[in-house]
Amino acid sequence: MQLSCPAPILQHETVQMAHGAGGRLSQELTGRVFMPHLQNAFLDQLDDQARFDAEPGQIAFSTDTYVVSPIFFPGGNIGELAINGTVNDLAVGGAVPRYLSAGFVLEEGLPLVELEMIVKSMAESARKAGVLIVCGDTKVVQKGQCDKIFINTSGVGFIPEGINVSCRNLKPGDAVILSGTIGDHGMAVMTTREGLSFQSRIKSDTAALNGMIREVLDVVPSVHAMRDPTRGGVAATLNELASSSSVGIELDETAIPVREEVRGASELLGIDPLTVANEGKMLLVVPQADTEAVLTVMRAHEHGREAVCIGRVVEEHPGMVVMRTPFGSRRIVEMPLGEQLPRIC
Amino acid sequence: MQLSCPAPILQHETVQMAHGAGGRLSQELTGRVFMPHLQNAFLDQLDDQARFDAEPGQIAFSTDTYVVSPIFFPGGNIGELAINGTVNDLAVGGAVPRYLSAGFVLEEGLPLVELEMIVKSMAESARKAGVLIVCGDTKVVQKGQCDKIFINTSGVGFIPEGINVSCRNLKPGDAVILSGTIGDHGMAVMTTREGLSFQSRIKSDTAALNGMIREVLDVVPSVHAMRDPTRGGVAATLNELASSSSVGIELDETAIPVREEVRGASELLGIDPLTVANEGKMLLVVPQADTEAVLTVMRAHEHGREAVCIGRVVEEHPGMVVMRTPFGSRRIVEMPLGEQLPRIC
Repeated sequence: MQLSCPAPILQHETVQMAHGAGGRLSQELTGRVFMPHLQNAFLDQLDDQARFDAEPGQIAFSTDTYVVSPIFFPGGNIGELAINGTVNDLAVGGAVPRYLSAGFVLEEGLPLVELEMIVKSMAESARKAGVLIVCGDTKVVQKGQCDKIFINTSGVGFIPEGINVSCRNLKPGDAVILSGTIGDHGMAVMTTREGLSFQSRIKSDTAALNGMIREVLDVVPSVHAMRDPTRGGVAATLNELASSSSVGIELDETAIPVREEVRGASELLGIDPLTVANEGKMLLVVPQADTEAVLTVMRAHEHGREAVCIGRVVEEHPGMVVMRTPFGSRRIVEMPLGEQLPRIC
Repeated sequence: MQLSCPAPILQHETVQMAHGAGGRLSQELTGRVFMPHLQNAFLDQLDDQARFDAEPGQIAFSTDTYVVSPIFFPGGNIGELAINGTVNDLAVGGAVPRYLSAGFVLEEGLPLVELEMIVKSMAESARKAGVLIVCGDTKVVQKGQCDKIFINTSGVGFIPEGINVSCRNLKPGDAVILSGTIGDHGMAVMTTREGLSFQSRIKSDTAALNGMIREVLDVVPSVHAMRDPTRGGVAATLNELASSSSVGIELDETAIPVREEVRGASELLGIDPLTVANEGKMLLVVPQADTEAVLTVMRAHEHGREAVCIGRVVEEHPGMVVMRTPFGSRRIVEMPLGEQLPRIC
């Protein structure tokens, strides 16, 4: 059998407890499932730590664990999400993301073919984003003690001189820019989970935004703040920004792009799309005068075609986000409590 | 109640799904359980990424996820382990560990008092090791979809100029040094899990070794390789070193220190102590001429009092570890398969 099979030859078809115990089967899993896809000069060293040279500027460091369920969903999977999410967390700080770690917790019995699909798509996403996975770790827990697979990615990047974006930099008068439609990722996952019939039309927006962010910063280095509105959606992110900078934010409801299918699913599930997670969108707060320049750069980019100004920073109601509705009334956009959308990323 | 209770005031006594959803309850968990213990100038920023200045030398980057069961065991808990483990992974590469991330996966229903004990001991361990936890993430999964708590820590450190330790540096003639008794951590966890009566006498050796490693490198910068023999124990680590450097390793069985209780428990459970995880021990491979200098420094340190030379690197049998028994015979120390000791770290 070893001679006739060109695919990775493994003793087992599913994850075994011994695959996580640091012995021969751990080596086999690394050598036959991880390394063929993730191989690079750093990871090949197989030391306890990766080593690389510093680049000019400050170091940025970020971490996120991904527990999304289901692990495969329309538009992506947990592996892709784990790469794009951490790349974005670095990039919204103005950093150029460079090196990622990957820590896996696997459930005994997970089909190795599913693990390999996930690893393969991590490798592809990393390539697209221009980052390297330089160190990793794999643990296995008994069947029923984790749900298929959890992935932690941490990342290191470098913030070029002269860039200073922070959630504490918002100034009254600034424009609030959104890169595109909201709620796509969260609704793709929710509708798949709930088995709703229109699920196939909603796709996750998972994408690495570092390329677009770089282009924006090259043209407008004076961007005040950037954030990717993931868990808690645009509502949570803008509330955090308003609170961190002690300013108010005023939104124009008609300006916020929501896909028809996402709006429909949100209504059916009783969820405000403003509170739904995005995985390929970003919010930027920029000096009013730079609005058009930023929008021009973003709209020329595949991930920012629908970029739009959705509101502005105001002196009034510090810490609060207020929405002007199409009927001219105003409502407070609250920080979501967080009970409706578990395991969305 | 809010007025009369000096302790953190939380709406719930256990972890709720909403604690991981990025909304108000997530903020409450961060503000009331994590921040009081972990607070520092970097973490206080609450941005999506931590930022810090590079230090001279190469950057070292490492990751590990901790899934040990039980989460509290004689001599430590999962939080302490998560800090010390990643600190050691950086330090054995010759790096000065500086910044750590912490990624939590929590099971719905985990008592917050247990979470707080773990976080508190992470803070204490970080302080002892001289590292800062600068970024973090918390996810919550439904009851039954993870086992209480999993913690990923990733770490960044800096490798001073002139240090070059690597698993590929072993040279025939080198001495193999072990910092103390083997098997303590693994046997503390195993005997607790199995409910064996002598459990109380075996304690985990979990400890941060970066202080001792620094002192060794200050005196003997020419150390060839260092490793902490965790999963798979001394057997797995030495097999990896032998294989990476294409050399043989010869051990002297009588030289390897094993506590009486650990030997007894190992015999009862049918496990070779050489394959059992350690969490506060290290193996060093040093030029023969530096052996005494290294042992002197180590023995003066609380974590190296029982440091001893246990063998040497040889040209013969490359990739293989061979043990000389007290009776003068020789046996091969194999890479463990890895089935006996799940969830040990």
